[in-house]
Amino acid sequence: MNFDSFQLENLALAVDDEGIVTVSLNRAAKRNALNAATVDELVEVFSRLPRMGARAVILRGEGTHFCAGLDLVEHHTEDRRPEEFMHLCLRWHEAFNKMEYGGVPIIAALKGAVVGGGLELASSAHIRVADHSTYFALPEGQRGLFTGGGATIRVADLVGKARMIDMMLTGRVYKGDEAISVGLAQYLVEDSEAKALEIARAAATNPPLSNFAICSAISHMQNMSALDAAYAESVVAGIVNTQPDSRGRLEAFANKTAARVRPD
Amino acid sequence: MNFDSFQLENLALAVDDEGIVTVSLNRAAKRNALNAATVDELVEVFSRLPRMGARAVILRGEGTHFCAGLDLVEHHTEDRRPEEFMHLCLRWHEAFNKMEYGGVPIIAALKGAVVGGGLELASSAHIRVADHSTYFALPEGQRGLFTGGGATIRVADLVGKARMIDMMLTGRVYKGDEAISVGLAQYLVEDSEAKALEIARAAATNPPLSNFAICSAISHMQNMSALDAAYAESVVAGIVNTQPDSRGRLEAFANKTAARVRPD
Amino acid sequence: MNFDSFQLENLALAVDDEGIVTVSLNRAAKRNALNAATVDELVEVFSRLPRMGARAVILRGEGTHFCAGLDLVEHHTEDRRPEEFMHLCLRWHEAFNKMEYGGVPIIAALKGAVVGGGLELASSAHIRVADHSTYFALPEGQRGLFTGGGATIRVADLVGKARMIDMMLTGRVYKGDEAISVGLAQYLVEDSEAKALEIARAAATNPPLSNFAICSAISHMQNMSALDAAYAESVVAGIVNTQPDSRGRLEAFANKTAARVRPD
Amino acid sequence: MNFDSFQLENLALAVDDEGIVTVSLNRAAKRNALNAATVDELVEVFSRLPRMGARAVILRGEGTHFCAGLDLVEHHTEDRRPEEFMHLCLRWHEAFNKMEYGGVPIIAALKGAVVGGGLELASSAHIRVADHSTYFALPEGQRGLFTGGGATIRVADLVGKARMIDMMLTGRVYKGDEAISVGLAQYLVEDSEAKALEIARAAATNPPLSNFAICSAISHMQNMSALDAAYAESVVAGIVNTQPDSRGRLEAFANKTAARVRPD
Amino acid sequence: MNFDSFQLENLALAVDDEGIVTVSLNRAAKRNALNAATVDELVEVFSRLPRMGARAVILRGEGTHFCAGLDLVEHHTEDRRPEEFMHLCLRWHEAFNKMEYGGVPIIAALKGAVVGGGLELASSAHIRVADHSTYFALPEGQRGLFTGGGATIRVADLVGKARMIDMMLTGRVYKGDEAISVGLAQYLVEDSEAKALEIARAAATNPPLSNFAICSAISHMQNMSALDAAYAESVVAGIVNTQPDSRGRLEAFANKTAARVRPD
Amino acid sequence: MNFDSFQLENLALAVDDEGIVTVSLNRAAKRNALNAATVDELVEVFSRLPRMGARAVILRGEGTHFCAGLDLVEHHTEDRRPEEFMHLCLRWHEAFNKMEYGGVPIIAALKGAVVGGGLELASSAHIRVADHSTYFALPEGQRGLFTGGGATIRVADLVGKARMIDMMLTGRVYKGDEAISVGLAQYLVEDSEAKALEIARAAATNPPLSNFAICSAISHMQNMSALDAAYAESVVAGIVNTQPDSRGRLEAFANKTAARVRPD
Repeated sequence: MNFDSFQLENLALAVDDEGIVTVSLNRAAKRNALNAATVDELVEVFSRLPRMGARAVILRGEGTHFCAGLDLVEHHTEDRRPEEFMHLCLRWHEAFNKMEYGGVPIIAALKGAVVGGGLELASSAHIRVADHSTYFALPEGQRGLFTGGGATIRVADLVGKARMIDMMLTGRVYKGDEAISVGLAQYLVEDSEAKALEIARAAATNPPLSNFAICSAISHMQNMSALDAAYAESVVAGIVNTQPDSRGRLEAFANKTAARVRPD
Repeated sequence: MNFDSFQLENLALAVDDEGIVTVSLNRAAKRNALNAATVDELVEVFSRLPRMGARAVILRGEGTHFCAGLDLVEHHTEDRRPEEFMHLCLRWHEAFNKMEYGGVPIIAALKGAVVGGGLELASSAHIRVADHSTYFALPEGQRGLFTGGGATIRVADLVGKARMIDMMLTGRVYKGDEAISVGLAQYLVEDSEAKALEIARAAATNPPLSNFAICSAISHMQNMSALDAAYAESVVAGIVNTQPDSRGRLEAFANKTAARVRPD
Repeated sequence: MNFDSFQLENLALAVDDEGIVTVSLNRAAKRNALNAATVDELVEVFSRLPRMGARAVILRGEGTHFCAGLDLVEHHTEDRRPEEFMHLCLRWHEAFNKMEYGGVPIIAALKGAVVGGGLELASSAHIRVADHSTYFALPEGQRGLFTGGGATIRVADLVGKARMIDMMLTGRVYKGDEAISVGLAQYLVEDSEAKALEIARAAATNPPLSNFAICSAISHMQNMSALDAAYAESVVAGIVNTQPDSRGRLEAFANKTAARVRPD
Repeated sequence: MNFDSFQLENLALAVDDEGIVTVSLNRAAKRNALNAATVDELVEVFSRLPRMGARAVILRGEGTHFCAGLDLVEHHTEDRRPEEFMHLCLRWHEAFNKMEYGGVPIIAALKGAVVGGGLELASSAHIRVADHSTYFALPEGQRGLFTGGGATIRVADLVGKARMIDMMLTGRVYKGDEAISVGLAQYLVEDSEAKALEIARAAATNPPLSNFAICSAISHMQNMSALDAAYAESVVAGIVNTQPDSRGRLEAFANKTAARVRPD
Repeated sequence: MNFDSFQLENLALAVDDEGIVTVSLNRAAKRNALNAATVDELVEVFSRLPRMGARAVILRGEGTHFCAGLDLVEHHTEDRRPEEFMHLCLRWHEAFNKMEYGGVPIIAALKGAVVGGGLELASSAHIRVADHSTYFALPEGQRGLFTGGGATIRVADLVGKARMIDMMLTGRVYKGDEAISVGLAQYLVEDSEAKALEIARAAATNPPLSNFAICSAISHMQNMSALDAAYAESVVAGIVNTQPDSRGRLEAFANKTAARVRPD
Repeated sequence: MNFDSFQLENLALAVDDEGIVTVSLNRAAKRNALNAATVDELVEVFSRLPRMGARAVILRGEGTHFCAGLDLVEHHTEDRRPEEFMHLCLRWHEAFNKMEYGGVPIIAALKGAVVGGGLELASSAHIRVADHSTYFALPEGQRGLFTGGGATIRVADLVGKARMIDMMLTGRVYKGDEAISVGLAQYLVEDSEAKALEIARAAATNPPLSNFAICSAISHMQNMSALDAAYAESVVAGIVNTQPDSRGRLEAFANKTAARVRPD
């Protein structure tokens, strides 16, 4: 995988031998706040990575914070008109939808601030790994703002609409076990980057077509009525479950040489 | 805010200097059960409060119980026909939808029974504060009834469809930490009215337009497919995030004089 | 209730005096894996039971495991084409939708493996009772497969999309208190079959029309926008809440001879 | 039906012996353009008429035009901020949704201009009767506007999204047979008011509960997936088709004394 | 195809050499009105025909009328309770949904009355062929009823919600060219049965998997948001467009030996 | 507007002084059939044009046919696996969704064959102009295929699901007045390119923000329930209807110097 054709200033890319790509937010001095340029780079990166053969992606931030959200200084300076901000949000959504629906597993390694747009970015990943420094908040209400990068969709999906409304009305901060319990992350560990790599490696051992379905079909089906999603699921399973890549795995299962599911 | 033009027998209204309105269910002898007249008063109150400039609403009950739900004695006496009860339910929904989608933060201060229609009423608020006397149940199944005030929508949203079905099939009662854990309330405190006032005051410091979006747009977006909700969210953020009321807040942020989000 | 006209090899049926039907998965040697024939039998059983007057259903497995999911040996041997597997999945959905939307309470008594299609089967029941041997997983990713029996709908509904994606990408196993906490089951007990029977008996004391609404309407309403679901709920309540079967219950309530809801 | 408690300046109400209410737009000098005050009056009228027992409503305009849409002079003078116009639109929707979903048949008698918001108003009625002077257009694009009273919903529903987009991009005007053919009205006659009255009288002979279902349930069901709408339809028919008011009609049918459906 | 195991009194089945099955409504004396028994037979027939290998189905009525709808005499005699009629409607929907979503092309050969439930039955077919005797109406409003067999879904889909509401409020009858123009049928011919057979034969020459997709996927996709339907369509096309049955057809196209699309 | 950075082989771009871009399908020898490379070019073109300031787009084909659809020779030669074709379809959808939702008016100038994927391409434009040589068909059924570029969404939207199913089952061809009547195109003219240019010029005189809303919001709102779309429409109108670009237009209207809507 060659990233030479990317022209990135706010993001940094790396790839290992197993096809696991690390995407780093590279504005530590700004707590990785998302300015317009960063969002454009996210659009480009996540438009192209799935077609370049990435097996899994680790998303992380430089410095002590994952991401502090919308770059409010830029926003204040730009003094945008409503339609300008609307167009900016549509770019955020283009980036984040490509992440969620793109078919490649994305693991977010969290730390420090995961607030506002930073939480929206994190919730566009498929798995979130928090460490003990990680804290989550939606301070938009206090700032006189509203979310524009999908919090109403993805954060509401993670914690429920009621908890999200509480976060926005009151500025409530979640962290630690409570953050896990309400669903903001699936893992709480000492070293979120190490754990994210471990998860990415595990996920990357699945056939790409299975991962594609897991990381695109489920999200689409959540939008469908249950009875129509059932139909769509049947068709997706029709393709995935008869793929040649799985024959060896099924044979191993039939031969009892495959690892069994065990409750530890 | 002047409430003289309201003719209320079952509800009582009060407002403080900050524009925080307290709506009290005023039928303590009936455990604040919801008769048809009370529902009509709720329709009127929540049709008019948002247009009167209420900054936040506290919803509470007189006596030791928040609300015992549908007035079953009235229901038994009236011996309604199916279409009559359907029309009654449609009034419940008019009241409760105006609460949820009305754009003004509503904080329910709970205690004692929050059962059946009382839970439906509570779940139409944006934030629920429970105390240690509070208990939640949907006894409709045992009574030979079905919910008609939105439990299938809002209680299912709070606790998940499976837990709600369990509550209805078996009459299961939730309270205390478990009620918080499953999502029936966002806060468990000693004094739910004091905490509700604290939350209402905090919420009321946000610009009204931000609160309007938080207390209307999120609920609408939950009904949309994610990809269409993203579009709608962009437009809402376009208006909210460029409102003049927020300029001072953004400037304070840029100047680093604004309060920062902190993990406690 | 007479089951003579059923020709079942993979399922066994029994009924008690109260109209509570026990459906047993009868392939213990295969860990009750779901081959095509079993699915056909599930379609037949759940097409006919609601019309035969079943008051509640207990779903259990012979042997030490509830159900290990899709019969992978059969799947490997059959070497199906995509459309063949799609058609098979559509039969799974016919069985599972008839369970979920059929109007009769189904209580799943779980133990041992509840994995893959076994979890899909369990999540089609209305109440899940786990014991301490029970463990839940979606190993499809590792097997090179995708779910085809509604996990994308019902498991996502139970635990949230994010946790489900984690389960599928990584093979994560849930059990015990954590399984309850994330929503995979509503009860964790020593003896899941005894508890399931207790719950079924309790549910069976509700009027059938109330149970029908609880076990069909709520699921349909989850597919609707909130504002349309409110309308539908009004109409359902119009029928259920004026049924003659409830008059005695309402009278008992009015007379204060009915059991009251109590927080224990 | 007594209208004394209405305080209307822009609308006029009348009722005949059969309970058919005529609502007249009363600003002929402004081509019945919809200013904010008129919309508030529409909200009040259509909130109350269904509960006052109106059997059918005729909606018409004074002067030579039905309605020229948003009062652009007021809009220009008010120089509204985005959120102000949003709030105004929400009032339009409150009025128009109460019309469409209110359960009372509304027949619009059209003439002259039915453009912009005037077409939105007309499309909130259940039946539209045009005469040969009637013309339809959505000039919002040329005016530098967008529709805010439901054209994206109701006009798109009448003529299809593609024709509506054409109307908005190009200002295309429809009238006469072509307007009927594309679906903008169901009737083209010499005297639209006389025909509207004839239709209203016919509709008013149906039982109110049937009309309620026709004028509320169908619109809700259009928002549902087909498979869920089928469920809802079953419940609505359960109530409507067993109403006592229909027994005489069914008996007349059984006795062959009822009018038969005939192809003229 | 052997129909011996069907026990039908109200329907008659026949099959020709090409696998085209004719289903005849066999109650000419009742204008083929749909009593409860006929609906049960429709459920059975359309549950089993797709799995028996039917290539296409012609649906017709004995006598001079296709179908006069709900058997009102039975309905009057039965004096059903709301929930009883609801359950009856759910059987109608089970029959009609199996028709629409079953994957086998169904061609309705119409004549005479296609009214009420008869129109609901006809609209569950994929293609409707009318002759000059055919007339369409929804007289439910006049009868004091509401539709319970899917008219709110399928008739609204054919003619638009507005025309359907007009039909129900006023009893309007459509026939001839106008019926075609508004979309009630796709063909108007002299001999509807002969034309239906011609169409069925043409459809039966397509590969069954293509017909399955045409007669199931499109209906499901209509329930989905466009952006999710696009995803589902991709997966369906993935299976259908790579089926071995199509290789010969593609080769014929590549060799230019296949029939070309021509505008006559 | 400078197109130097585009590397196009199958498409050609041109722009005039008014910002109207012409996109030409440039494979006349193949009847402009859509091979994979062309689809990739469509993705690129319609990703970038909206951000380059295009005021309107004319979409046309070189040679005598607009577009014959999927390149069946390439498809036959590639001998794709199901997942490969699924991924190809997802690219088609990326291109076509960017067209429909991109906010820039696209006018398709049609001629000759507009069949299969060619009709899917045409239906992704906002306005379709046919000439007398134009014919429309979906021959997928006869070819043993299914549509994979959105016909189930956009063609069904244009002509109704029933007519589309007829087209696919039987290969029915529409042209001329009948094509207009059923909704396949909005205009039938002698010279479709000249008319398309005229329409594009007219559309380009609207403010870009109005056109953006017309060419993105309406499509999103079609996916929403009516009651939620009303909310979204209010917000869109809030932004569009207060844009500075419209002030002059409103002033002209107030001054009566603006062109009036006239019924021809």
